[in-house]
Amino acid sequence: MAKNAFVTLATSDEYGIGALVLAQSIRNVGTNADIVILISNGVSPKLADSLNSIFTKVIKINELNSGNTEILNLINRPELGVTISKIHCWKLTEYEKCVFLDADCLVIKPIDELFEKMELSAVCDLGWPDCFNSGVFVFKPNHQTFNELLDLLKTENSFDGGDQGLLNQYFSDWFDSDIAKRLSFIYNMHSTASYTYLPAFKKFGERVKVIHFLGAIKPWHYSYNKENGEITSTYMATHHMPHVRLWWNIFAHQIKDNLPNDLSGIAGQLKNLEMNLEENYNRKKQWESGNIDYLGVDCFENIQKN
Amino acid sequence: MAKNAFVTLATSDEYGIGALVLAQSIRNVGTNADIVILISNGVSPKLADSLNSIFTKVIKINELNSGNTEILNLINRPELGVTISKIHCWKLTEYEKCVFLDADCLVIKPIDELFEKMELSAVCDLGWPDCFNSGVFVFKPNHQTFNELLDLLKTENSFDGGDQGLLNQYFSDWFDSDIAKRLSFIYNMHSTASYTYLPAFKKFGERVKVIHFLGAIKPWHYSYNKENGEITSTYMATHHMPHVRLWWNIFAHQIKDNLPNDLSGIAGQLKNLEMNLEENYNRKKQWESGNIDYLGVDCFENIQKN
Repeated sequence: MAKNAFVTLATSDEYGIGALVLAQSIRNVGTNADIVILISNGVSPKLADSLNSIFTKVIKINELNSGNTEILNLINRPELGVTISKIHCWKLTEYEKCVFLDADCLVIKPIDELFEKMELSAVCDLGWPDCFNSGVFVFKPNHQTFNELLDLLKTENSFDGGDQGLLNQYFSDWFDSDIAKRLSFIYNMHSTASYTYLPAFKKFGERVKVIHFLGAIKPWHYSYNKENGEITSTYMATHHMPHVRLWWNIFAHQIKDNLPNDLSGIAGQLKNLEMNLEENYNRKKQWESGNIDYLGVDCFENIQKN
Repeated sequence: MAKNAFVTLATSDEYGIGALVLAQSIRNVGTNADIVILISNGVSPKLADSLNSIFTKVIKINELNSGNTEILNLINRPELGVTISKIHCWKLTEYEKCVFLDADCLVIKPIDELFEKMELSAVCDLGWPDCFNSGVFVFKPNHQTFNELLDLLKTENSFDGGDQGLLNQYFSDWFDSDIAKRLSFIYNMHSTASYTYLPAFKKFGERVKVIHFLGAIKPWHYSYNKENGEITSTYMATHHMPHVRLWWNIFAHQIKDNLPNDLSGIAGQLKNLEMNLEENYNRKKQWESGNIDYLGVDCFENIQKN
């Protein structure tokens, strides 16, 4: 067993597939660390073989939920309550130092140097940069930390209803205490950065090591053309596409064939996804024009019926 | 003369009016510092009386321009080339320490404590947070710095075509060198933060001292109802509105009556504004429904004709 581990979390089959691609992406660039996944009951047993073949350890956890529906409805992301389950990672005390990565991240360059960083190191959040984004962070497993986080959840809950609010409340000195705890954006580049500040992406983009597909639309919601390997651009800026394509290259060539048939179609669906009207409209238009091919189940059927 | 100054820049009458509101907002919260504006030929002489009545000094400068149209077109903001003129602020060596504020900022709490900060202190940019946002920064006037910035502009130009790219190239150690140089978001809160991460805004919003109206749509592009003092929400999230209302309260009650008649109508117009189609469409719809009243010239006439 290594002394370090990359850790991720899945509470559904969708995120389970994201996690498979994430783990494969880490193996592809190379690492000396273990790769561990925490899964809740939301992940179906059918995924077990695939998970076991890629991850060093697959650990079942009890799903936690902030239950803070009021605040989660404010941001239209009711699904984020279960991300609190992430705090189970502090119980992995068999490791000295770990790096947590959300299952919607993709590693494109080696990042083992992160294990040299101290707890809690992270990249700032682009919504409120005095807070850190909890999609990628360095931590030191410790049962006391886990217990204190759980206590904080019970007494104060999370200000944003997800793990990010809770972790920022607990590690509240992140912004002020030590410059070394603020990681460069290259370790958690929000996939939107390529169009919000394109000149910076053009100048610094080559340094990026981890892409984080933030927001409600994940790579597995895109459509993939089996014939030519192209990702169909829907409403997203075309600059975003190369990152989605990197994800699909791994999924299509290294993951999909090892999945049970009834799971491989999850990517490409829009199941349970609340999209805004403009996105719906644009996707529907492209679908009607016949320009979209996709993997698995017809992802636009629901839109048409509703 | 004070030893410190707040400094801003206007290269057009629109930004001149923004600067008047900014300066008034600083006077309203109180300061011991001077308030200085740099103006180019783009500001018409008619604004002179108003500027002289609010600013401690009005200083004419030669407009600089990055001329980097290729990269400016990439971000659809061709007007940003002249923001390079900002570097003239380093020539204000009669002051020991200064704070630069873009003319689309609004100060809502005293910020004289910023003069204790070192050069170059700033808030991270939300597009690429390893860079600082150049809308608010602490600097130390110095002719040598000005000359070096000018040389850098000539030799390397600015990576984003505006002042922010150039300043980040020059002060390239901002991210790594000293934690004290990274200012809290409360000193340059992008007005969009209230809807991109609403829970954080709800938790930390009361601490905010400076609001920065980033993006192509400025407060003076909104419509104002003379009868009831209400700002008409167009395409923007309603959470944004209270900030725009703060701006208009100052403009309508402390600035407008002192402006020459043919200038007071600038706010409320959409002159020279490139809006995207969705915004155009939403505004036009609201206008047609009769729900919008506005100050000054009919801001929707051009849209209808085109």
